[in-house]
Formats: sequence, C-alpha cells, structure tokens
Amino acid sequence: MTYCVGILVRDGLVMIADTRTNAGVDNISTYRKLHTIEEDNDRLVFAASAGNLSVTQLALSMLKEGLEPLEEGGARRFTTGASTMFAVAQLFSEAVRIASEQLSEELEARSIPASVSFLLGGRLASGPLILYYVYDAGNFIECRPDTPFLQIGESKYGKPILDRALNFETPLEEAVKVALISFDSTLRSNLAVGRPLDMIVIARDRVHAVVKRRIGTDDRYFNDLSARWSMLLTEARATIPDPPFMADFVAINGK
Amino acid sequence: MTYCVGILVRDGLVMIADTRTNAGVDNISTYRKLHTIEEDNDRLVFAASAGNLSVTQLALSMLKEGLEPLEEGGARRFTTGASTMFAVAQLFSEAVRIASEQLSEELEARSIPASVSFLLGGRLASGPLILYYVYDAGNFIECRPDTPFLQIGESKYGKPILDRALNFETPLEEAVKVALISFDSTLRSNLAVGRPLDMIVIARDRVHAVVKRRIGTDDRYFNDLSARWSMLLTEARATIPDPPFMADFVAINGK
Repeated sequence: MTYCVGILVRDGLVMIADTRTNAGVDNISTYRKLHTIEEDNDRLVFAASAGNLSVTQLALSMLKEGLEPLEEGGARRFTTGASTMFAVAQLFSEAVRIASEQLSEELEARSIPASVSFLLGGRLASGPLILYYVYDAGNFIECRPDTPFLQIGESKYGKPILDRALNFETPLEEAVKVALISFDSTLRSNLAVGRPLDMIVIARDRVHAVVKRRIGTDDRYFNDLSARWSMLLTEARATIPDPPFMADFVAINGK
Repeated sequence: MTYCVGILVRDGLVMIADTRTNAGVDNISTYRKLHTIEEDNDRLVFAASAGNLSVTQLALSMLKEGLEPLEEGGARRFTTGASTMFAVAQLFSEAVRIASEQLSEELEARSIPASVSFLLGGRLASGPLILYYVYDAGNFIECRPDTPFLQIGESKYGKPILDRALNFETPLEEAVKVALISFDSTLRSNLAVGRPLDMIVIARDRVHAVVKRRIGTDDRYFNDLSARWSMLLTEARATIPDPPFMADFVAINGK
C-alpha cells in the first residue's frame, strides 16, 4: 500500500509520499515513491507513485531512456525536450500507458493487481506550478483551485482533514502541516503506509526554490506534531457537550 | 453507499447507521439500515446493514418468516427461539448466507455488486451485551475489548477518530459523541453517506434500558457538534507550530 498527497496552493506546491511497499504483510520493504524526473535551476519535475512497483519502475525507466520516436528515423523523446508541463505530462502518461499495457495482462492472469497511479508536479522555467493526477490508462487530470489537492493510494483515512483545512489561499507552511496531519491519521490506521516520508516543497515565489526532506521515525517535528494533534483532539472532544438525549434512557417497557 | 458503526464498551452498546442508498449518484433514496430483529423487555437484538439492498431485505425477511426446519417435519426456526446471542447470530448468519447464495450469481452476472455485511448487536435476558460482524459467507466475528468497535460500509473516513478515541473503558456518552464525530467526517467526505442517522444505545446497566434516536439534518445536537468540531480542529491546527524546516528553502543551485 501507499499514500501520497499533492497540494497546490497559491504559494506553492507540496508533494509527500510514504516509502512502504508490501507484497503481503509478511513482505514489507522500503522503496522511494517520490521520484525526481527533472531537477535543475529551471526545470523541477517530481512524480509520486502508487500501485504495482514493477509497472511503476518500467514506466520511469522507459521515460529515462527516452520514448520511441513518433516517426521512423526520428529522435527518442525525453521530458527534457518538453517546453511545458503539459508536454511533460503527455510524455509521462504515454510511458505509464505503455508500461501498463506491457505488464497488466500477464499480471492479472496471475491475480496480481497491476494498476498504478501517479502525481506529477512541478514547473518549467517561468511557467506555472502544475500538479497532475496520471491514471494508468494514460489519461490525466490537473489539480485546480476549487480542490487544491490530489491523493493516490490509501487516500481515505487522511482525506477528512484535507477536506476541512485546505483551500487555495492556505499558506504553504500550513499546507505542509495539514499534509503531515493527514499522513499521521493514515499511518495510525493502515500499517501498510509507513515512514520515512519523502517531501518536496516548491515555492511559487522564485527566490525560494525548494525544500526537500525525508521524515524518518526519529523526525522531531513530525513526532511533536503527532503527539500534539493527538492531545488536541482529546481536548477538543472534551469540550463538546455530551449528547443531551443520553439522559432519555427509558425502560424498554415504556417505549 | 452506507456507513454503520457499532461500539461495545464496558458501559454499553452503541449502533448507528446512515440511511442513504444509491444506485448511481442519480438515484438516491432513504432506507432504514438499522433494523430491529427483536425488541421486548428481555430481548434486544438490532442489526445494521451495508451492501446490496435486495440481498439485505431477502435475508431479513427470511429471518422474520423463520428459516426452514433442519430436519423433515421439524418446526421453522425463529431467532425468538434462540436462548443466547451466539445462537441468534448463527440463525442470522445462516439467513445471510442463503440470501447471498440465492441472488449473488445472477447479480454478478449483471455486474451488480451483491456483497452484504451486517453488524448484529444486543442482549438476551441476563446474558451479556454482544456485537458481531456478519459476513455474507455466513461467518461472523465478535467485537472484543481490545478494539471495541466494528464498522461496515464506507468505514475509512471515520476510522481515525475511533482508533484514537475509543477504548473499552470509554464512557457511553463519550462513545456516542465519538461515533457522531466519526459520522461527521464521513458525511463530509462521501456524498453517498447521508442523514438521517438511526441510533440505538443499550446500557449495560439494566435499569436504563435503551435510547433510540433518529438524527435528521435539523438535529440541533449533531449540528452543534459538527460546527464545534470543525472550529476546534481549526484551533488545534493553529496551535501546532509551523514546520521549522520550511525556513530551509534553498535555491536549487545550492543543492
């Protein structure tokens, strides 16, 4: 299992992925799921992945070696040749679709789930920060201000806090905090999601480019956030009055 | 979709079910999913249901008309003839299994999900309060003090708060409050779960027998709880310090 979240607010982009993979609960490993597609001063493209690991790696490796030319005698196609995030997403999703087509039939014949999904985010040169959800059919959707986040993998445990807390004007620091609370809830409820977490933050403001961080089990900030959140929820529950109708207990004869 | 939760703490039993059913988002209805199996002074048995509505109703109707005798010439078997909750659960799960067998092949041939699941809870005479999870294969498990709750249907959005807040010693009023917070999170994140909610509370203390309540969209306590919880979460988030590493923004050249 996996949990990855991408948040795109006015101030910037946050992407966080866990690192736990499992082929059954008796076979658990740590694999990086936040991948660097491009990274230099002008081009920042990162992808978070969920689903079948071999399909994921096949897609990423194909992308790295360049996709087949579109026409005979043409050049191999690399994301580095793309001039917009949309063009990057088209190449990326093509690789995903081809990898999925190559492997899914054989995998499914063995009852092995073959599906994959990706968050693809970043910025090229002076273009806008963009975040996509890429499906294994090769289609993709873009994150928009109305719902400024996307999730892949084990998304439900951590979704309520995102629904409540995020909007497009949420400050970047707050968005990171909310994303980590979302991970805290997920980590508690699903053993198949685990630390370390990999995080990338890209500020819209060009002066401050990027924060990268791996959040391990000894991460002081995350541990403090987790303990505080737990305590605050307990306090919050205590301030909500008890249900008044709980005084209405009646002997069942009196119904 | 559906969300039902059952909580069994030292002080008593709480069962809550929503009432929204849908056959596609364009076909939404209200159906009671908290069913009274038996209810008199000495026998309190309730079931909450999730999954295919026709399979659910077939199982409950068969149970009401009595299951076929086990041997030729024998009497039809009713839950009212059972002397323990375990015996009730055996009859109940037999009805579920038969209903599932009767309908699932034809339904699945039409790609209609046929699965069902139930929470079955209550008490007979001076016996203990018991809560079961009944699967459509006719097998069932019992709720135990280590994890004093069971969920069926759309369970993930509302699980983190149960994981954090409940233990076997949680007072009954608090358990009701936590269950309603769990519903609040689920209602916000999944449109296919909707009010009114049906609730039954049975106190272990025999003097106070039972609280029944339907919580509609105009329920003042639930609306107050929902507004307070939202406000308290916002306040709680604000008291958690911003991530210190968000000061670590570096120009990507300096990596």
